[in-house]
Amino acid sequence: MQRLQGIAVSPGVAIGEAIIFGNEGFRISRRFLPREAVASELARLDQAIAAAAKEIDLNRQRVAEQLGDDYAAIFSAHLQMLQDRKLREELEQMIRDRHYSPEYSVSRALRRYAKVFLSLEGDTMAERANDVFDIEKRLLRHLLGERREGLGELTGEVLILAHNLTPSETANLNPNFVKGFVTETGGPGSHTAIVAEALDIPAVVGTGPFLTEVSGGETLIIDGDNGLVILQPDEETLARYRHEVDEHKQLAAKLETLRDLPSDTLDGQHVTMFGNIEFPAEVKPCLDRGAEGIGLYRTEFLYLTRDVQPSESDHLAAYREVIEALDGRPVVMRTLDLGADKIPNFPMPDDERNPFLGLRSTRLALKHVDMFRIQLRAMLRATTAGPIKIMFPLITNLLELRRAKMVLSDAMEDLEEEGIPFSRDIDIGMMVEVPSAVVMMDHFVQEVDFFSIGTNDLIQYALAVDRSNKDVASLYTGSDPSILRLIKMAIDTAAQHDKPISMCGQMCGNPIYTMVLLGLGLRTFSVVPAAIPEIKRVCRSVTIPQCEEFAARVMSLESARDVKTALREELIKILPDQLI
Amino acid sequence: MQRLQGIAVSPGVAIGEAIIFGNEGFRISRRFLPREAVASELARLDQAIAAAAKEIDLNRQRVAEQLGDDYAAIFSAHLQMLQDRKLREELEQMIRDRHYSPEYSVSRALRRYAKVFLSLEGDTMAERANDVFDIEKRLLRHLLGERREGLGELTGEVLILAHNLTPSETANLNPNFVKGFVTETGGPGSHTAIVAEALDIPAVVGTGPFLTEVSGGETLIIDGDNGLVILQPDEETLARYRHEVDEHKQLAAKLETLRDLPSDTLDGQHVTMFGNIEFPAEVKPCLDRGAEGIGLYRTEFLYLTRDVQPSESDHLAAYREVIEALDGRPVVMRTLDLGADKIPNFPMPDDERNPFLGLRSTRLALKHVDMFRIQLRAMLRATTAGPIKIMFPLITNLLELRRAKMVLSDAMEDLEEEGIPFSRDIDIGMMVEVPSAVVMMDHFVQEVDFFSIGTNDLIQYALAVDRSNKDVASLYTGSDPSILRLIKMAIDTAAQHDKPISMCGQMCGNPIYTMVLLGLGLRTFSVVPAAIPEIKRVCRSVTIPQCEEFAARVMSLESARDVKTALREELIKILPDQLI
Repeated sequence: MQRLQGIAVSPGVAIGEAIIFGNEGFRISRRFLPREAVASELARLDQAIAAAAKEIDLNRQRVAEQLGDDYAAIFSAHLQMLQDRKLREELEQMIRDRHYSPEYSVSRALRRYAKVFLSLEGDTMAERANDVFDIEKRLLRHLLGERREGLGELTGEVLILAHNLTPSETANLNPNFVKGFVTETGGPGSHTAIVAEALDIPAVVGTGPFLTEVSGGETLIIDGDNGLVILQPDEETLARYRHEVDEHKQLAAKLETLRDLPSDTLDGQHVTMFGNIEFPAEVKPCLDRGAEGIGLYRTEFLYLTRDVQPSESDHLAAYREVIEALDGRPVVMRTLDLGADKIPNFPMPDDERNPFLGLRSTRLALKHVDMFRIQLRAMLRATTAGPIKIMFPLITNLLELRRAKMVLSDAMEDLEEEGIPFSRDIDIGMMVEVPSAVVMMDHFVQEVDFFSIGTNDLIQYALAVDRSNKDVASLYTGSDPSILRLIKMAIDTAAQHDKPISMCGQMCGNPIYTMVLLGLGLRTFSVVPAAIPEIKRVCRSVTIPQCEEFAARVMSLESARDVKTALREELIKILPDQLI
Repeated sequence: MQRLQGIAVSPGVAIGEAIIFGNEGFRISRRFLPREAVASELARLDQAIAAAAKEIDLNRQRVAEQLGDDYAAIFSAHLQMLQDRKLREELEQMIRDRHYSPEYSVSRALRRYAKVFLSLEGDTMAERANDVFDIEKRLLRHLLGERREGLGELTGEVLILAHNLTPSETANLNPNFVKGFVTETGGPGSHTAIVAEALDIPAVVGTGPFLTEVSGGETLIIDGDNGLVILQPDEETLARYRHEVDEHKQLAAKLETLRDLPSDTLDGQHVTMFGNIEFPAEVKPCLDRGAEGIGLYRTEFLYLTRDVQPSESDHLAAYREVIEALDGRPVVMRTLDLGADKIPNFPMPDDERNPFLGLRSTRLALKHVDMFRIQLRAMLRATTAGPIKIMFPLITNLLELRRAKMVLSDAMEDLEEEGIPFSRDIDIGMMVEVPSAVVMMDHFVQEVDFFSIGTNDLIQYALAVDRSNKDVASLYTGSDPSILRLIKMAIDTAAQHDKPISMCGQMCGNPIYTMVLLGLGLRTFSVVPAAIPEIKRVCRSVTIPQCEEFAARVMSLESARDVKTALREELIKILPDQLI
């Protein structure tokens, strides 16, 4: 049994078989071969070596033509390494004697070679290790060939272990089979964490390096409540966690009964409960759990899940699907909220040392108006299918907001000229997630129809903490008193000017914050589908004066630690069976 | 004549000869050889090739021992490239016929080869270009050998062109010879910009790529006021800029007369004028310009300018030098304000995707208390030499500040036990530069003796803009109304609790902000030495009620553009000869 402490980013407990999702996107598990497969697997290895060799030789020839034989020698060297007799012997031994798969054997053997390079002192030895990784990659590509298994093509339930998952990899997970995941990197609020919550699967991130010690196939427990990962658990531990899984199921069953009940407080204040979604298919889980609409539709997953930029009709098709599934209920569509690095076929800004403080989101959209216009046209055209609102993310200053609105107006005029139908009667809103936006709310109220507080980014910037950097993740928390004050400022200013304001960050999907947020005046929550019943239950168990009194007390506390303790104690007082 | 638009980060105009400071830290200029040197330079080239070959062969042998000949083949390939006959012919031709230096020839020829690799399609061709760069680097190292010219060893006046300058490279510049610089990357507020200002030399950053088009030796104009770089200017342009240089000199002469006059406003309010320094040697320029002390001593340059971490006595020697130069005047020493990447021999945090939101400054110090303690002990021991104050940077929350103070207390106890003399009577302060610190000022006032507003970081976090990212640099400005409001919040809260507050960011060294800052209640300015006379002149030209009235008007403006216009107009009204 081995325990790893990471960061809890998506609650729940999962128990199952681990598979490793490699850095190169290859899934390499230590599958043991049946004895009778050894011969055919050895043949497969030799084919892969031959194919890789042919490829390298082709490169060699091309370089020889262009630069001469001496420069082509680099490829001869690669060829020699690939065809090294000792390597072939070692691989055969692993396949024949230990029944390892050729993929696993290749990875294991070549990584050991790379380590030797890395361990040698000398000015360029470390760089040479890359040559070995290069050969590994090439061999694996040939070995896996069409058998390369993306995470989308799983056939059984698994728990995924990875160094890191990109947003698109996470987005392509099939929640029917993926029952949890663990990544070595990342922190609360990373995209990985957001998707895990959306998919409602337990996840732990930021465990630090451990993948070199596992080979896949082991039994694994992911404790998403406490950020714990347990490899090869003993019987007692397994039994304890199985009991916890049962408890979770019982609470879920209890929450199920809330579905069709209104989310009103005990003293009759209605609280609007919206869902956050990434994909059209998530509308149904939201409605199933009693959402009154969608408060945040993250449209960027249209960009993440394909190799080319989505066309106007790609956008429109997705938007219509969402609108139709909502059947007249409202939806807030957020425009592009990505960094340049996440957009297919996009010119990368060079030297972006701090992408979270860089060219992303609305800033990027305004630099690439053609791309932005495609999305805005699709949103406008979607208005014929049902009621939508458009929301601009990461607004930093007034002029930026006005420029975004101007691009939208231009798109309206274009559609009008082209005779394409759409509705001009559309609410425009902005995310409040940059500290400057909170500070300047009294100006912004003149410019938009509604606000939504994005706590993930707001916390990140107000506390100067990268939410996915595990070295500072402990600083990142909505319980920091400064965050509560900024939220209060935003809600107060919106209320003074009668502008609707909601919250859509992860904070409002966490039941420990529900009372304080109600007390600060929040009346519209937009949360991941899984959180809807829990948040609703808290709302139905309290009165507004009770929350206001509690909020006043919390606001006087000086540290995140004190705040968190107070929030927990109060919630347990109200709902003793709440699992925190 | 070629004009490049970059970002103006340090004012003034410089005219002179350009030299290129390469990425590898090599200075490679297209020096033309005298005819009689050709033979000896060719011999030098052959020696370098032989030495590099010997080195590669040594690596080859070591890998052959560890992994076998097939893996050592990679070095044979490098050897073959290095000894390629065609390459040798090409180099000889450049040296013999064009009289290029061997360094320039090697760089030119191998970069062309690398380009061929990069232009070939194929999955790993680009990676192979690195092999060529590797050989280039190796050859240059041998060619330059002891002749390798750091920027510290210049002998004539030059303007430096570079892709980027690290803080340590910038810090090692000799201001007697370096009269200006231009970098392809960077933005306002980058370390490069800060040092350029400190050294009082014109600088333009973020021009984008242009180094491939210059070869050094050209005449160059750096217009640090307008962010312009002019390569090979025509006569008319040269004459115009020479006139401007004269104007600057005249203003400087006028400002010179202010040196010994107090920086009081017309209505008799004294304004304390401190200097910001990096090096002990900068104390004198501050005092020469009338500084009353040092408001910010950036101690991190002790870490940047050497290959090992500074020892307690390294620190102490530098601190004592500063204190002695100040002769009883106060100095605020800021503790370590670096990211892990800047500290010699330091374990790098992996996967730090956004270092500005990561493990840096006091966060880093608190994770590596042993290192922190060395600096704090030295600061405490320096108290016997004269009055110092200690300031912690990047404080995010109360507990962090208390932890830093606790490490300081521990250091005091240790010194006491060891019988090493120091003074316990020492003021402790913090930087206000994270938005959360502004929001929580009313708690922080209980914990420190003084504050200093760090506008560079505050702007960066409040507006979510990496100050060195040229794609978003236009958003980064102290004129954003949200920044003025945050500054007002900080000053007001400090005043309510009778705590001294100063400002040490670049904003307060820019005369366009002086009036609004005085109007918001700032009475202590800490600025780069060069800015002292200008800021003093503004103070001596206004009354406090006038500034307060002006500030009230500015605070009602909605955009940075409006604010900037108002600031400029007002300053020109007061001081018509001010160069903005």
